[in-house]
Amino acid sequence: MLINNLKSKIQNRDACVAIIGLGYVGLPLAIRFSQEDYSVTGFDIDEEKVKLLNIGKSYIKHINTDDITAMSANGFKATSDFSKIAEVDVIIICVPTPLGVHNEPDLSFIHGTLENIKPYLKENQLLVLESTTYPGTTEEILVPFINSIQNQESKIENQKFTLGVNFYLGYSPEREDPGNKNYTTKTIPKVISGVTENCLELTKALYDQIVDQTVSVSSPKVAEMTKILENIHRAVNIGLVNELKMVADKMDIDIYEVITAAATKPFGFTPYYPGPGLGGHCIPIDPFYLTWKAKEIGMNTRFIELAGEINTAMPHYVVQKVGEALNSVGKAIKGSKILVLGLAYKKNVDDLRESPSLELMDILLDKGAKVEYSDPFFKTIPRTRKHQFELKSIKLNNDLLRSADLIILATDHDDFDYGLIQKEGKLIVDTRGRFNNSEKVVKA
Amino acid sequence: MLINNLKSKIQNRDACVAIIGLGYVGLPLAIRFSQEDYSVTGFDIDEEKVKLLNIGKSYIKHINTDDITAMSANGFKATSDFSKIAEVDVIIICVPTPLGVHNEPDLSFIHGTLENIKPYLKENQLLVLESTTYPGTTEEILVPFINSIQNQESKIENQKFTLGVNFYLGYSPEREDPGNKNYTTKTIPKVISGVTENCLELTKALYDQIVDQTVSVSSPKVAEMTKILENIHRAVNIGLVNELKMVADKMDIDIYEVITAAATKPFGFTPYYPGPGLGGHCIPIDPFYLTWKAKEIGMNTRFIELAGEINTAMPHYVVQKVGEALNSVGKAIKGSKILVLGLAYKKNVDDLRESPSLELMDILLDKGAKVEYSDPFFKTIPRTRKHQFELKSIKLNNDLLRSADLIILATDHDDFDYGLIQKEGKLIVDTRGRFNNSEKVVKA
Repeated sequence: MLINNLKSKIQNRDACVAIIGLGYVGLPLAIRFSQEDYSVTGFDIDEEKVKLLNIGKSYIKHINTDDITAMSANGFKATSDFSKIAEVDVIIICVPTPLGVHNEPDLSFIHGTLENIKPYLKENQLLVLESTTYPGTTEEILVPFINSIQNQESKIENQKFTLGVNFYLGYSPEREDPGNKNYTTKTIPKVISGVTENCLELTKALYDQIVDQTVSVSSPKVAEMTKILENIHRAVNIGLVNELKMVADKMDIDIYEVITAAATKPFGFTPYYPGPGLGGHCIPIDPFYLTWKAKEIGMNTRFIELAGEINTAMPHYVVQKVGEALNSVGKAIKGSKILVLGLAYKKNVDDLRESPSLELMDILLDKGAKVEYSDPFFKTIPRTRKHQFELKSIKLNNDLLRSADLIILATDHDDFDYGLIQKEGKLIVDTRGRFNNSEKVVKA
Repeated sequence: MLINNLKSKIQNRDACVAIIGLGYVGLPLAIRFSQEDYSVTGFDIDEEKVKLLNIGKSYIKHINTDDITAMSANGFKATSDFSKIAEVDVIIICVPTPLGVHNEPDLSFIHGTLENIKPYLKENQLLVLESTTYPGTTEEILVPFINSIQNQESKIENQKFTLGVNFYLGYSPEREDPGNKNYTTKTIPKVISGVTENCLELTKALYDQIVDQTVSVSSPKVAEMTKILENIHRAVNIGLVNELKMVADKMDIDIYEVITAAATKPFGFTPYYPGPGLGGHCIPIDPFYLTWKAKEIGMNTRFIELAGEINTAMPHYVVQKVGEALNSVGKAIKGSKILVLGLAYKKNVDDLRESPSLELMDILLDKGAKVEYSDPFFKTIPRTRKHQFELKSIKLNNDLLRSADLIILATDHDDFDYGLIQKEGKLIVDTRGRFNNSEKVVKA
């Protein structure tokens, strides 16, 4: 009855938990397990993150340093030494799953993790994947991986795993929403699955300790598809309002007024808002995992592709509006001083992942604009895979606002003084519907 | 101060109200005004409806005869005599706005109504359109119509109208949801607009008497677009899950399990469910009003067209699943006895408008199936513009269920005995996710 031993350990908080990948998903999860008195070890290949955590510092704005120090006081250690995997009972993988340049799934972080932990896996461990991925990943990649582990590949003697008997595998998609003040890791219901009944039982026993509600589904691929559906839903609904924004604009209708009015319908309608493009790690990326997988079975995901096409075109649409606005006062984009407000992909967070602001700035610079930006969350712009800027955030004041030929509101942080901007700005291109209608405001 | 006279009349319940079009929208509205002690006259070109109402009978299942008799007791009269328009203060148009055969707006009922009332319009009346239509209809059709009325066209002397001065025009989209038990005409917030400020003021004064909340918007076209957006949102979200249903099916994933799991996310996701196609008067039709109008300004509405394409294909997808299921037991569609459960376009209503069940039955008959149906709301099938069947509803029993080669659940009325159907049916094609997974159940 190996399963009962592990289950008791989990339920009695005697289990040691390893969290691999200490980013937006793994770090809050580590904190949550630590809060419930589990012995938690955090793994990351980024030595800088390991170092910061071990001196009690947070590198994510919405995660408090207090939570890190409390976790450290409770025994948490971060490490990049994967041999310590041999010392834990539960391993949770929270590594990124980005897209390759051809919009294909990039599972290199998952594969890298599996290679790193392979020599140190041992009997009676529970391994759970939390990374968002296409339906079938757990069954098609992780199951064969576990089944392939033989004695010669392990640094621990006599290892041969039988899933559900002496090794357990689950999939539970992360549902983190950075900056959401209404829901936390604890209060967001968690979808769980296992490759066998025993695997599900243990996965459920584990998450039942740290979240208020677990939702069991019948297989890992159902859990994988669940997370993808959640993000497809958002990507398509945002694509839809972005398309309708352009139609409404041509009809001289303010789409924000329309959405606000429609949102008074108490059933059958949920408001989504347009913007300068999609950002964040989930919405622009995850849907294409399904698109890629669907091709394998000869199916198309046309809504996803249409949403991708329209959302990707948004920064260009904004630039077109910028060009028209400047033209109306006899100026070209080239040589104009353009101030971009907000770099983060959504308001009030310090998260730059896939932010359309960067794309916007790249296009404007390419067209010869003199681009400046202001974002209280980014004093400078960290280098990303696609973009590199040598700019510093500018603090807004009357003179600065007056000196810009055009101001683009890209991300509507609450910190901005909208009254001042509307008063002092010469021309404003508003991609968030935040400014009052006036002659100098162009909605885009 | 003509406006103040009319406003007082409205607020004091002294205004006489005409409702034109006594269907799913106009009839509940007439009842609602009557409940607030207005003198209400109902107009319809359908003499049968006029006759039934005048003997206190309802022809819509979810509208109680009690409400009709109470309204009659309160002075309500139905008529097809439009000369009586000269006797009222307020005229509300609730006529259908269907699509033509090329998916173009068919405003013939609105035009017909305007011609009918034209000779009897008089100063100091308020005219409100409630029919769903494309943005611009009120300004482009009703405003010129009112402005065109001169003395010689009116049977009343010296008529010449100036909008907002001696005649008032508003647009307020209906939001009726037949069968919705949580919301009524009174409790659903009502979007209102007027072509001038006075027009809006009177329209607001009017609806404030009969609904809990009015929502003023800046122009009729914003109000028109609001209603269209609400229905585009539904059409696209249903199209999306219908597409994902087909992808999931190929991956051997139950889309209903996925949607149920995703719906546990407390933010950022709203569940929509797949089905055998779109039905009802709004969702399959209204979005194309925007598509048509958008073409005028060189714009495309690609989400709407994609949703239309996928939703329209659904009955054919169901038939394909029927063919595969029958084939698996060595039978062809031709000659097989197929029982269709549910004719209405949604459950628990007696509404057949645009129901995909009819399309489904047509395709099956065309392929040579022996089709029967059961629907507690339709003993026979009323002739529609597109379909004509000589069939009678069959009462379900063990023998009947056993005798069918295949049963299609098209509309999941609560009245059906699902346990019995699952027990006795040989093969079930389930388009609503209502049956438990088993070998004889095929999800479609």
